[in-house]
Amino acid sequence: MSSFEHGLADVTPVLTRASERLAARFDGVVNAETVERVVFESYATLARTAKITEHLPALAEHFAGDRLTALGQSRGMIAKPHPEILFVCVQNSGRSQMAAALTTLVAGERVNVRSAGSQPGEFILPAVREVLTEIGADLEHQYPKPLTDDVVRAADVVVTMGCGDACPLYPGKRYEDWDLDDPADLDVDGVRRVRDEIRARVEKLAGEIAPSD
Amino acid sequence: MSSFEHGLADVTPVLTRASERLAARFDGVVNAETVERVVFESYATLARTAKITEHLPALAEHFAGDRLTALGQSRGMIAKPHPEILFVCVQNSGRSQMAAALTTLVAGERVNVRSAGSQPGEFILPAVREVLTEIGADLEHQYPKPLTDDVVRAADVVVTMGCGDACPLYPGKRYEDWDLDDPADLDVDGVRRVRDEIRARVEKLAGEIAPSD
Repeated sequence: MSSFEHGLADVTPVLTRASERLAARFDGVVNAETVERVVFESYATLARTAKITEHLPALAEHFAGDRLTALGQSRGMIAKPHPEILFVCVQNSGRSQMAAALTTLVAGERVNVRSAGSQPGEFILPAVREVLTEIGADLEHQYPKPLTDDVVRAADVVVTMGCGDACPLYPGKRYEDWDLDDPADLDVDGVRRVRDEIRARVEKLAGEIAPSD
Repeated sequence: MSSFEHGLADVTPVLTRASERLAARFDGVVNAETVERVVFESYATLARTAKITEHLPALAEHFAGDRLTALGQSRGMIAKPHPEILFVCVQNSGRSQMAAALTTLVAGERVNVRSAGSQPGEFILPAVREVLTEIGADLEHQYPKPLTDDVVRAADVVVTMGCGDACPLYPGKRYEDWDLDDPADLDVDGVRRVRDEIRARVEKLAGEIAPSD
């Protein structure tokens, strides 16, 4: 009956070790029980939509580490030297990934960015990777991930794109909703057009919240 | 700029009170920080897909309470007098809801059931409600919710329907995968057929894991 007979592995040992590493890293900021829950729930939520499961424990550890950082930031226990922008779209496979990468390209270390999706897709769209790579923007180590409470709390600015209702509202943040075509419905030239529209918007936003001088 | 100007409420106070209630209820089982995170993340994850947001804080408290119960059960700190079955489909709006309701109808308190979806839908399908109501099965207080790690851990039997790869595998559990048509694609007569097929399967399963004598 057991699926283990088919060669699928129990992830408990590897996720337990990841939890121990992160508990040490966040010692004094988040308690070990919460860290363990964030790691295992990060794995479960990525597993729900991921197509390729090979690197999932490593992605879950990375995702959990970023979520715990966000939690520490929102509590004022981890420094946040730059304004934090959270980009949210539906699948976190096109618009929000482009916005995050373009913001880093445009504003460098003057801002920090995160991205998420209300219903994360299986992978980042190939056309999105293509049109970002050709202008030197970086999508390495990025992957679709769900919108979580912790990253909303850590954000100074939340930009939603096609999923405005999906995001919890907290006071003291700037919320924007950008109306953009979905790259999933477009050919490469169309995706380039959306890219350039996003670039103009992030240049404006970065200029407002983190001017270069 | 703030969306609060449009009348949308900050949910922090109501979710904080829910966290305090649940922290008291799970005192000695789960620490207060973890409880608070489970409550706020339960809200965020339901908000991502819910269409109607009016009752969302109450649903989030209910969902968080069940998740914390599952966590306590998986740690042996909350009694689990009956075998626990977890039904998982894609949207938690059809097959897994029917399986849970029919198991309760067939086996009563000899088993306990939970259900979840890999990509939860916005609401339970009306045809599913209809064909369950006509045989006296109960879907009251049910709503689509995402598959989480805690409920998998608490389960003795995990039955997947159309989403086998989405569920974390842990040793010591019985995993089954049921091949059933998706009610979302069927008319009411088709949904009745799926209902009767599920009923036959849950009768067999309940007879095996929780015989009536």
